[in-house]
Amino acid sequence: MTSPSAGGKVYLVGGGPGDPELLTLKAARLLAQAEVVLHDSLVSREVLALISREAMLVDVGKRAGRKLLTQDEINGLLVNYANDGKLVVRLKGGDPLLFGRAGEEMEALRRAGVEFEIVPGITAAVGAAASAKISLTDRRLASQVLFTTFSRGETGNWLNWAAISPATTIAIYMPGTHYGEVAARLVENGMAPETPCVIVSHATRAEQQLRWTNLGALSDADRLPAPSLLLVGRVAAQDLKRWPGGVRPEWWPQAGFFELPV
Amino acid sequence: MTSPSAGGKVYLVGGGPGDPELLTLKAARLLAQAEVVLHDSLVSREVLALISREAMLVDVGKRAGRKLLTQDEINGLLVNYANDGKLVVRLKGGDPLLFGRAGEEMEALRRAGVEFEIVPGITAAVGAAASAKISLTDRRLASQVLFTTFSRGETGNWLNWAAISPATTIAIYMPGTHYGEVAARLVENGMAPETPCVIVSHATRAEQQLRWTNLGALSDADRLPAPSLLLVGRVAAQDLKRWPGGVRPEWWPQAGFFELPV
Repeated sequence: MTSPSAGGKVYLVGGGPGDPELLTLKAARLLAQAEVVLHDSLVSREVLALISREAMLVDVGKRAGRKLLTQDEINGLLVNYANDGKLVVRLKGGDPLLFGRAGEEMEALRRAGVEFEIVPGITAAVGAAASAKISLTDRRLASQVLFTTFSRGETGNWLNWAAISPATTIAIYMPGTHYGEVAARLVENGMAPETPCVIVSHATRAEQQLRWTNLGALSDADRLPAPSLLLVGRVAAQDLKRWPGGVRPEWWPQAGFFELPV
Repeated sequence: MTSPSAGGKVYLVGGGPGDPELLTLKAARLLAQAEVVLHDSLVSREVLALISREAMLVDVGKRAGRKLLTQDEINGLLVNYANDGKLVVRLKGGDPLLFGRAGEEMEALRRAGVEFEIVPGITAAVGAAASAKISLTDRRLASQVLFTTFSRGETGNWLNWAAISPATTIAIYMPGTHYGEVAARLVENGMAPETPCVIVSHATRAEQQLRWTNLGALSDADRLPAPSLLLVGRVAAQDLKRWPGGVRPEWWPQAGFFELPV
């Protein structure tokens, strides 16, 4: 700590994938205790309903392309409220340390000498996998999982997909609805068009929707509303009843999947 | 459903990284309602304390290398208790769909026509990142994160690390304590020895410990007790006060990190 913060503290809190019951106990407790809550637009209404009625609520999210507050402004608010001695919650969709801007916020808090803590949340890919009931790292099909996105970073940050074995599951955050482009980019970089995938929209919520397909047919899939997530890999064919394209035997070298009633 | 399950249902529930407050509200509710709980040894005692006292508790974990129950036996118990009409919780450390054996259990439940549901949990890598206060995908340093492990799968499932840009953060589950081997394997496959990393043991728990180092020096780090996790990548140097090896300017092309007091 480089300066006194007069007892204020900032909690960077994960709001989870949408279902308010998927908040952690700690997140729910902090929302009930908070004096100030700064939240993203990705946080669901049911989660916002758990916030103390005495708390001041600041929506710092972007809506329809209109930026409500810049990142610098958000950082400044966090520091100022903490320096006023407040219990401040910075509430983010999913987990704060995955595809949020917690890095910049933590840096600003460190610079200002403000005490802060991270309260993890269920990230979108994990929520989507739960909705789809597929093991991201089913040991018969996958050895690892990559969480990535198309909407940020430069092309140079990208993987050479050809170097990735088919035993890697890929979870693509915020895939948008240009499904054909997404699929083309993956196939151009070495992924087989037969690779199964599933689009999960509004995972864990009542209005959730899933579309099971493969990369070759992805461009024909129904466009589903955001927030959505795309899971790509052999594990995405696991629920055979929903898998229209047939299953290739080499995907299941060990498991007895073909005895399943389809 | 291919057969009646007499009202029984199985919930595959994530027990989170250790801190019982990091359970989801839904997981806590189900633990209080469960009639039968089958749990791993990775689940913390404080989490087990939340289970209904009326529930039957079955420890299916492995301890000190001794396998208590085979996977087939666990699958059989899940199906049998559900067919007896019980509310069954299969409680796993972290998240059920990441590095657990939920794939096999879901397959057994589908085959038997047993109703089941997935309740996500905070996975170890996310808990470790919260403890270390590093953004796994800080957009100034990383564009994606890979969750992987050394303890399963064949070599053929491995990545060619040289194909991975330094903008990929890697979270290695269950790295063991042969740190030199882990580092050598990563460096042999193309990662720079200067790459920062942090070992996080017992993340989110009172006894948590962290060791900040880099791949070249990893073999000299203190051996920390399991469960532990290794975070590798530029983001792991983010807390400059704890970073002994100095910071290379090319890691922060955009951010003003060097103005930070160290």
